[in-house]
Amino acid sequence: MKYEIEQIGILRTPYVNNAPYQPLNDDEGDFRIVVNKEFSEGLCELEEFSYIYVIYYLHRKTGTVSMLVTPPWANGKQIGVFASRSPIRPNSIGISVVRVKSIVNNEIFISGLDTYDGTPLLDIKPCINDLDVKYDANYGWIECLEDKEHLLLHINGIPHDS
Amino acid sequence: MKYEIEQIGILRTPYVNNAPYQPLNDDEGDFRIVVNKEFSEGLCELEEFSYIYVIYYLHRKTGTVSMLVTPPWANGKQIGVFASRSPIRPNSIGISVVRVKSIVNNEIFISGLDTYDGTPLLDIKPCINDLDVKYDANYGWIECLEDKEHLLLHINGIPHDS
Repeated sequence: MKYEIEQIGILRTPYVNNAPYQPLNDDEGDFRIVVNKEFSEGLCELEEFSYIYVIYYLHRKTGTVSMLVTPPWANGKQIGVFASRSPIRPNSIGISVVRVKSIVNNEIFISGLDTYDGTPLLDIKPCINDLDVKYDANYGWIECLEDKEHLLLHINGIPHDS
Repeated sequence: MKYEIEQIGILRTPYVNNAPYQPLNDDEGDFRIVVNKEFSEGLCELEEFSYIYVIYYLHRKTGTVSMLVTPPWANGKQIGVFASRSPIRPNSIGISVVRVKSIVNNEIFISGLDTYDGTPLLDIKPCINDLDVKYDANYGWIECLEDKEHLLLHINGIPHDS
């Protein structure tokens, strides 16, 4: 069964040719969600939320979808594509949780995310504390890596050597 | 711009004709993600994660998409559709965070979620603590409701009178 989805806006980021593997811990860049004008009214009250989910189409994926992937910095470990955040997956849907800084008309100014400039927006949903925040979430297979501390620097977008 | 997405499995829940507005705080029911067999290998190492994102197609939405919605229990308050978790939205994509209990072959046994039995699966992603868990996420417009405590009972799936 196939379904059709449509672009409802665009993500503006500083990443025109290269994007980091995870958001950098840097709120200084120009990160914006621009919602098509006909959807502007749908943003009413969104600014009340500290965090939102951004759902987008991974339009620049290249390569063939494989069920096993080797994430960067995972020391060659092979894992299932659904246990990874690889952009090359059966359905090209990406999700990020970002902080809302402000909303002006049809533009949402947000904290950093790791998508290319021009990424098509599909949906926005509020991140609601008791519903979505799982305080006891773990790190999955990352826990078992010898290099865990190093990988966590990448996950947290903390600059470091190598 | 339009894009095509495809069903890669199915969600099994006890909700054939009626679904709750939020997951009930009840792990006893039969909640399962059944991934199509050709994608089974993509589940490798997924069991290491305590929580996963389930991305699905809201196939039973009825009604016309409106930019302003009136969520249940919100005392008639109107909010933008993107500030809501309404299933009637421009793109019919749903997201839930669920706990992984076990994985057997191509079936993932999970904690409760509020989708209809038979909902088409689109994607699964790991929920990674530092990356996805925002400890300071708030409750958005729910904070300002006189009836906040009552709404939180619903959000947390806690049974109560009325």
